[in-house]
Amino acid sequence: MSSVFIAGTGTALPGEPVDNETLGRALGVSAEWMDVFVGTRFRHFARDLDTGEVRGSLAGLCARAAGEALDRAGLDPADVDFLVLATATPDRLLPTTATEVADLLGLGHLPVYQLQAGCSGALQALRLGRSLLAGDAAAGLVIGGDVTHRHLDLRPGAARRPPAELVNYVLFGDGAGAAALTAEPLGDRLAVRAVLNRFSGQGRAPGQVVNWYGASATPREGPAVTEDYKAIEESVPEMAAVALWEMLELAGWEPGDVDYLLPPQLSRNMTRRILDRLALPAAREISCVTDTGNTGNALPFHQLDRVAEQARPGERALALAVESSKWISTGVCLEKV
Amino acid sequence: MSSVFIAGTGTALPGEPVDNETLGRALGVSAEWMDVFVGTRFRHFARDLDTGEVRGSLAGLCARAAGEALDRAGLDPADVDFLVLATATPDRLLPTTATEVADLLGLGHLPVYQLQAGCSGALQALRLGRSLLAGDAAAGLVIGGDVTHRHLDLRPGAARRPPAELVNYVLFGDGAGAAALTAEPLGDRLAVRAVLNRFSGQGRAPGQVVNWYGASATPREGPAVTEDYKAIEESVPEMAAVALWEMLELAGWEPGDVDYLLPPQLSRNMTRRILDRLALPAAREISCVTDTGNTGNALPFHQLDRVAEQARPGERALALAVESSKWISTGVCLEKV
Repeated sequence: MSSVFIAGTGTALPGEPVDNETLGRALGVSAEWMDVFVGTRFRHFARDLDTGEVRGSLAGLCARAAGEALDRAGLDPADVDFLVLATATPDRLLPTTATEVADLLGLGHLPVYQLQAGCSGALQALRLGRSLLAGDAAAGLVIGGDVTHRHLDLRPGAARRPPAELVNYVLFGDGAGAAALTAEPLGDRLAVRAVLNRFSGQGRAPGQVVNWYGASATPREGPAVTEDYKAIEESVPEMAAVALWEMLELAGWEPGDVDYLLPPQLSRNMTRRILDRLALPAAREISCVTDTGNTGNALPFHQLDRVAEQARPGERALALAVESSKWISTGVCLEKV
Repeated sequence: MSSVFIAGTGTALPGEPVDNETLGRALGVSAEWMDVFVGTRFRHFARDLDTGEVRGSLAGLCARAAGEALDRAGLDPADVDFLVLATATPDRLLPTTATEVADLLGLGHLPVYQLQAGCSGALQALRLGRSLLAGDAAAGLVIGGDVTHRHLDLRPGAARRPPAELVNYVLFGDGAGAAALTAEPLGDRLAVRAVLNRFSGQGRAPGQVVNWYGASATPREGPAVTEDYKAIEESVPEMAAVALWEMLELAGWEPGDVDYLLPPQLSRNMTRRILDRLALPAAREISCVTDTGNTGNALPFHQLDRVAEQARPGERALALAVESSKWISTGVCLEKV
């Protein structure tokens, strides 16, 4: 399959950064616990922690990021032939957030897809975008975002919850990111040399479960989000290492060819564990989780945004994202041309 | 883009059919009201209306339908290069139902995508499947399903709700459907001549809104599902008529070329309104909503399943599905070869 190009990237974060002291006060846990257990220092929420007021939608964040990506690519909304948006936390089940974003951007008469995904969604969207550009499309938007505050339970008593539940409130942050893809080199001219999207959860219990409730549910019993951190800590570094080698093979690159490594970003501490397994001699690490928290489907776009700013012609970047829900490995190889 | 082929279809419905008398008793409304207002006679639910017990998952239904589609196509799980599943009512937000289905079918090491969609999801999945087959894939599964009982509120007092809310409890049913797609003609040999997926909701209020609740929600206020039936009745027949002509143009067909017409199936009564606008002289109607209710993302697969059984070589079918959430038109043109 011929290359497609990232012509522009964009990002959006809601409100001011929330530091560990502030989040700790809201949850009744210590900032030190967060520093040691997670390593994240700041995150953003589309919800005021003091008042509970929701200050914006996922659609709004995604439209901001996508508008920025179009601007950076030098594209107009009329140039966009498709839109793919990935999220684990849509504003509503229907209409999709993807169609709301299309409306906010003034797009019409085009195919609009919304992927349900966790940490792998950004690169899943990129993978589908490449397939759609292999048809008759010339340009498209791929977008990822999450409003993780939908699962942030700030009712009194949070601190009495078990650590395995509590950590879900301190790992995540809200945000959106986007890339404008083109069939011909344009704007940032990051050629997509290879994309991986592989489910490998057959016969394995999920590492993360996130529930939703409809009208038929009895009032919520137990947490909406549960994670098996032991399984995640054991599996994700190994899966990332395997995906790295597979990506190099797919792109026909040697380890020394990679100038920028964009590792998975579940948390700062997990990223450190993963990096121990990913020895690439020449690569500079591009991480953002310490300042944004884990923004799920948005995060790889925030890393790509930094690559787009820094990379010089001929430089190469390799991004990996691993989803622990049911064990999905994703990756992308990019070359500035 | 060259043709791809539906090599086999499959369907699944949970439990026994629920007639209007039974549903009427559970909701405290009259069977006659359902007959007149909706026209649906039976539907299935993955939940026992008497006990409230949930008797199966969406993943289970989808795996049954997909397994049947593979059998009919003469394919093994090892032949499947990708899986795309569309739903408005995933079992959980994460892991995706699509990955759970892959696991149930014994699939691994392949890309798995889950689309969030309403009535347009089945044909959206088919559209993406065609793009994925244009790459290096030889066969894939596209699946649609919904467990609409997640929004079925059977608490006492249902009958006192306004009709606009109540109708949501009698329109829908649970089910799943699937198609095995191949790059070469195989099995049922239904060639996909054209697929349409077009968002046209720019600047328009949604016709259907479906909410979900996470841990941060206060206990549910108001219904999870609301519809603007006036807007739906006004717009859907017109959108279907426009999509029909567009599909004929895309496929290069004349109106007299269509042997089977698969109209949108919001309800039996709406289908009648729509058919009044879709005059195709030679076409036999293929509908199932009277016996299944509106099964959302599953329904077009149930219609396609009937075409696969009936069509003889050279016969042509045209399917349409319109999503009223944020106004999406979809369609597919098929020819038995």
